[in-house]
Amino acid sequence: MGKGLMTRQKIVDRALALAGEVGLESISLGVLAEHLSLSKSGLFAHFRSKEALQMAVLQEAKDEFTKSVVVPAIAKPRGEPRVQAIFTYYCSWIRSGGRCIFMALAQEYDDRTGPVHALVVEAQKDLNKVFEKAARIAIEEGHFHSSCDPAQFAFEFFGIAMAYQHTLKLLDDPKTETRAQVAFDALIARQKK
Amino acid sequence: MGKGLMTRQKIVDRALALAGEVGLESISLGVLAEHLSLSKSGLFAHFRSKEALQMAVLQEAKDEFTKSVVVPAIAKPRGEPRVQAIFTYYCSWIRSGGRCIFMALAQEYDDRTGPVHALVVEAQKDLNKVFEKAARIAIEEGHFHSSCDPAQFAFEFFGIAMAYQHTLKLLDDPKTETRAQVAFDALIARQKK
Repeated sequence: MGKGLMTRQKIVDRALALAGEVGLESISLGVLAEHLSLSKSGLFAHFRSKEALQMAVLQEAKDEFTKSVVVPAIAKPRGEPRVQAIFTYYCSWIRSGGRCIFMALAQEYDDRTGPVHALVVEAQKDLNKVFEKAARIAIEEGHFHSSCDPAQFAFEFFGIAMAYQHTLKLLDDPKTETRAQVAFDALIARQKK
Repeated sequence: MGKGLMTRQKIVDRALALAGEVGLESISLGVLAEHLSLSKSGLFAHFRSKEALQMAVLQEAKDEFTKSVVVPAIAKPRGEPRVQAIFTYYCSWIRSGGRCIFMALAQEYDDRTGPVHALVVEAQKDLNKVFEKAARIAIEEGHFHSSCDPAQFAFEFFGIAMAYQHTLKLLDDPKTETRAQVAFDALIARQKK
């Protein structure tokens, strides 16, 4: 990786960490340059606008999710084992902390419009598609009943993951892990009837 | 209501609406005074610090939830009808828009400390208690099986509500309503076994 690309990656990484704390709208190019000991013009050489940086941060978050959850899950056998793996890796990803900014961003951008909002919406749709596709394959493999509705499954899967993240980060409840697992097992059991 | 109290209420209402858009940390007393055509000192007469205003906004959001969801639900018969009513009123409250700031706040405050964070945590615990208590009464009334775990029920209830709010606000999916209802019906059915 060339020096320019390394600097760019550094900027995006730091911006992603900041976005997890203050939101994507509150990122200031000036503050970011200061954090990284860059001149403002040095930072502008990589991102000409706040919006360009925001888009890069979102893309980075999507890429990290793909790398940490989707890629290892796809290595598992088709059907239920893959569905289970997505849940396991998703929870690990949430636990590994800080970087799961999509839930916060969805809150921040739900009432806005524009390209950043559009990318947040697209990321959410892509996430749903991951769950839906895994459920569809589980039906094909005969692991889930043919009456299983993949979109409904995706909605509920996401609800459990949200409750998990929320409870884990906000409340200090040692049972959070078990609660998410019990809920997920019940969701899976319903797909087999 | 005296003039002073009316002004106070106006400030809190506007701050609550603003917090739903920009978060609670980004509220500026100056911007708020401008919005309300108040002098900054006039606003400071009611709230001496941003933190005092933030606490009042949180309390207002809690009070609104109590008034819109808890009070009408408690008027319903004990047990399953009351559990169902909480779900129905909660969804209406989410649909009625903008003011459901707790989910966003939880994201904003999960990594912070201090009195505002403490109040966000307390509000979340109170919310869980509403669901738990309703489930406990449903067990007492014999509507839910004695093996039902009220805290687990609360976790899953909240997950469905989160997925509902998230999907409703971010994605333009006309089936959101039905998805939440199907998930909730399945949750209820499991409590009867």
